[in-house]
Amino acid sequence: MGKTIIEKILTSHSGQECQANDIVVATVDFVMGQDGTSPLAIRAYENMEGQELFNPDKVALVIDHSSPSPLEGVSALHTIMRNFAKQKGCRIYDIGEGVCHQLIPESGQVGPGSLVIGADSHTCTYGALNAFSTGVGSTDLAGGLVSGKMWFKVPETIKFVCNGVLPAGVYAKDLILYLMGQVTADGCTYMAAEYTGEAIQALSMEGRFTVANMAIEMGAKAGLMEADEKTFSWLRQFTEQEFTAVSADPDAQYHKVLTFDVSELEPQVAKPHRVDNVSPLSEVAGTPIQQAFIGTCTNGRLEDLRIAAAILAGKKVHPDVRLIVAPASRKVYLDAMNEGIIQRLVEAGAAVVTPGCGPCVGTHNGVPSDGETVISTANRNFKGRMGNSNAEIYLASPASVAASALTGVITDPRQFMK
Amino acid sequence: MGKTIIEKILTSHSGQECQANDIVVATVDFVMGQDGTSPLAIRAYENMEGQELFNPDKVALVIDHSSPSPLEGVSALHTIMRNFAKQKGCRIYDIGEGVCHQLIPESGQVGPGSLVIGADSHTCTYGALNAFSTGVGSTDLAGGLVSGKMWFKVPETIKFVCNGVLPAGVYAKDLILYLMGQVTADGCTYMAAEYTGEAIQALSMEGRFTVANMAIEMGAKAGLMEADEKTFSWLRQFTEQEFTAVSADPDAQYHKVLTFDVSELEPQVAKPHRVDNVSPLSEVAGTPIQQAFIGTCTNGRLEDLRIAAAILAGKKVHPDVRLIVAPASRKVYLDAMNEGIIQRLVEAGAAVVTPGCGPCVGTHNGVPSDGETVISTANRNFKGRMGNSNAEIYLASPASVAASALTGVITDPRQFMK
Repeated sequence: MGKTIIEKILTSHSGQECQANDIVVATVDFVMGQDGTSPLAIRAYENMEGQELFNPDKVALVIDHSSPSPLEGVSALHTIMRNFAKQKGCRIYDIGEGVCHQLIPESGQVGPGSLVIGADSHTCTYGALNAFSTGVGSTDLAGGLVSGKMWFKVPETIKFVCNGVLPAGVYAKDLILYLMGQVTADGCTYMAAEYTGEAIQALSMEGRFTVANMAIEMGAKAGLMEADEKTFSWLRQFTEQEFTAVSADPDAQYHKVLTFDVSELEPQVAKPHRVDNVSPLSEVAGTPIQQAFIGTCTNGRLEDLRIAAAILAGKKVHPDVRLIVAPASRKVYLDAMNEGIIQRLVEAGAAVVTPGCGPCVGTHNGVPSDGETVISTANRNFKGRMGNSNAEIYLASPASVAASALTGVITDPRQFMK
Repeated sequence: MGKTIIEKILTSHSGQECQANDIVVATVDFVMGQDGTSPLAIRAYENMEGQELFNPDKVALVIDHSSPSPLEGVSALHTIMRNFAKQKGCRIYDIGEGVCHQLIPESGQVGPGSLVIGADSHTCTYGALNAFSTGVGSTDLAGGLVSGKMWFKVPETIKFVCNGVLPAGVYAKDLILYLMGQVTADGCTYMAAEYTGEAIQALSMEGRFTVANMAIEMGAKAGLMEADEKTFSWLRQFTEQEFTAVSADPDAQYHKVLTFDVSELEPQVAKPHRVDNVSPLSEVAGTPIQQAFIGTCTNGRLEDLRIAAAILAGKKVHPDVRLIVAPASRKVYLDAMNEGIIQRLVEAGAAVVTPGCGPCVGTHNGVPSDGETVISTANRNFKGRMGNSNAEIYLASPASVAASALTGVITDPRQFMK
């Protein structure tokens, strides 16, 4: 019987011909934790006496959620991570380096066919690289650190066929928001999403990361794409390692196949306080905003900043709006400076924060005030997500956020594009 | 009888021929508050019913201490400031714009002979521009906002004559730390410091701001310098307003005159936990550090970043050290990008935070961990200053901080200069 991508990856990593709903124990290729989750994982690890890391070269800890530390208590957690990494010989990405989900792909250690676990829900991002990568809890992470293995129920797969090509001014973020609205936040619970079709093929790697990143918001265990020349060419920037593309068999079994034509898609937003409370941006255009945020593992990449800078260049952010920009990694930050992108953003009035998660998770770097409305390129708009439960968050593309920052109200970015 | 600089400025602003120890009511030229002090001042202001700002064009509020906001409660304070500025028509500098003591000079609204009050202790910084500027409390600020006046006991003056020229690798920060060690933290209580001599004349304006900035650390009410061609040329970048230099009379009366020869000065540090616990850097060279910080109203200016970048260029920060850089203003940040300085700092491993106070005041952006040692270009190393009372802070020049960031131990920067 034919296999889906995830069935093939779990077969190759478990040594057991498996299909959906089987239980397997699989070898993992890479294990990652961030500063919200690693300290707990380290504590669990230390309760397993006499154990060592399965392979320090395949483990990384990333300080990105509260980076640099805003609080003494957080600093203590960072110290636990630094000491652990030093003692065990694994890599640590410290303050200033960026968001885990940009850094791990940039490390070149993940590619087509890889199996990655990370103690962060958006670990599904690397599905854009044709890898099965998924979020796990801190204690599962501890088990993975020691054993280099993880058990899985093999997920069923829902295939998303996205036909057509996105119109100008409509981006990967609009596409995934639209899909989210269609399938809802529990529409893929414990499923793998396979994203295919002309619209996915046409996306840059940055756009593909955006789409894969939000698979978890539908409840999916993974968001997978096929590898193509774009995938391999992107990877060659970072590694000489050879990867082999994993494709679904023509007779693979899907839980269901959903087909969309996105050729006339409009810019989308997710409205407060649910990721699947999605509508065309036009329905809420004109809503006043006080803060605009461009960044995160969803949309803090070079292409995102470039799109925003093109809209903001030579103009000024509306006086009632704060625009915060967090590049996803040091490389993104440097590349954006070398292209003049950061300069254009700052001249327009942006506050650029240290590469990392920025204000996305509400720990620092731009907590909104009571009654404020934020438009953000992040992946979550839950009540309180940014540190204030009396604020409202709209999710949108970098272009929509940039356009809204200029006008002070939610704005279709196409009005700034001739 | 001859007058000191401060006696002349208070005479011109009070309309009363005054000398040291007189009580005068003086008109102020500019009033400033930051986000640590303005909310209290606004509350006091609102208790004075029916009052208005004496002149909205001469008032500015600056969000710099916790910028962008790390906490919901802080965000609420920022909202109070934004609403007040909007309602009263005064200027607000919001997140991303920088530190008040860089922004007010850059506004061109302060120059030779000005009288400025600010609800921040380092308002004495503008003494480098031949202005009498001083820190006041929040309720005094409220009074100033309404009346445009402030009462003063005219300070006596201590004259610091700094002969000789600083050797290569020794900077304004080393000079002021050295003076601090000599006179101690209460050596100028409620005095005006007049800094003169060849060493002061030879300083750039950036260096002069550094020296004036730390007058308060000796307890001084003001730290004043004469205006010269450098002063006027610096000001012409920002304003066409004409200012008239204010010089002390040859027969001015001084509390005392202190003379120093600084031509053989070595790099200095202030050791934990007092600003006047000063020694030559060589005495503590080799002390391990975990965090290095370049920024603040003392040393976050373009020249400071340029000096640090020259030492760090093409090298890497020691793996046990986090280097945090906070440009003092958006202009400094942009100028530094245009010169390639930010790029060199980031390539070396720095985490660049949003222009503002950065981790100086312990509210966010780099709170150290228990037991850590920080070397910083800031002006205060009190226990707990950076948010953790179990950390130790050494104060030094940007060159010394950069050199120490490379080696992981407190290091004389001259070893990186050929």
